[in-house]
Amino acid sequence: MKRTLLAAATVAGLVTALPAAAQWQKPEDAIKYRQSVLTVMANHFGRIGAMAQGKVPFDAKAAADNAEIALMMSKLPFVAFGEGTDKGAPTRAKPEIWSNNAKFKAAAEKMQGEMVKLEAAAKSGNFDAVKAAAGAVGGACKGCHDDFRAEKYSTN
Amino acid sequence: MKRTLLAAATVAGLVTALPAAAQWQKPEDAIKYRQSVLTVMANHFGRIGAMAQGKVPFDAKAAADNAEIALMMSKLPFVAFGEGTDKGAPTRAKPEIWSNNAKFKAAAEKMQGEMVKLEAAAKSGNFDAVKAAAGAVGGACKGCHDDFRAEKYSTN
Repeated sequence: MKRTLLAAATVAGLVTALPAAAQWQKPEDAIKYRQSVLTVMANHFGRIGAMAQGKVPFDAKAAADNAEIALMMSKLPFVAFGEGTDKGAPTRAKPEIWSNNAKFKAAAEKMQGEMVKLEAAAKSGNFDAVKAAAGAVGGACKGCHDDFRAEKYSTN
Repeated sequence: MKRTLLAAATVAGLVTALPAAAQWQKPEDAIKYRQSVLTVMANHFGRIGAMAQGKVPFDAKAAADNAEIALMMSKLPFVAFGEGTDKGAPTRAKPEIWSNNAKFKAAAEKMQGEMVKLEAAAKSGNFDAVKAAAGAVGGACKGCHDDFRAEKYSTN
């Protein structure tokens, strides 16, 4: 099973910082991992989003710290969407992730690219730049979710 | 509720990189966040642990990359153990986290300190140093889990 998942991840060719280290014994472990990474990313991006939307005051240091974490997380989850990880634990991953993998990969890379820009903007401390970049990241998240994330969790 | 959680986090005084940004609308959000952070940390530390235990070949670059991620994660979860987050979602957090918070804080800081050493060892590329530091991190994880993590998830 491990070898199957590894091979699938290699075939999928998804962007990752750590291809050689991506290994899970069971599909449920890969599912739990990618969900956890995305939860951490959403929490920290969300704190910048709240600033960008004027819900909380802009704090340049906090924005930069949160962006650094979100950027690191953005690199991690996609290798955990290997073939065979469409079930094994409740997941909102749609079958299109595997049936239209090139589009999924492009959506992942779009988000990753926008996150790089957000981190650079946050480091600059310029609120307008952060606001624009956060909007682009949010758009990339939504675009991928619209196509590849189901409304409800599977029950398998 | 948000203010309560924030105040609790401040009182607890737990180590965190982002005290001002720690805010969750509901206890379940804090629980999901801390569980996700710890899952990501365990995955990446686990890859180093596997090398340290000889289960996979030592790869200095992979060890350093994984240690960087684990180190970043080690700084994050403890602010999410504020008062009032003992329930709201299934959790293995024991009541002792709050009834003996000083000991919990010390255990958290012990792990964080060992993780700093592991990251430095991994950067050095020296296998023996990584092996020793990974053992210390593993011991710190276990020590905290023995005292503060229940066998089973609560059902509340």
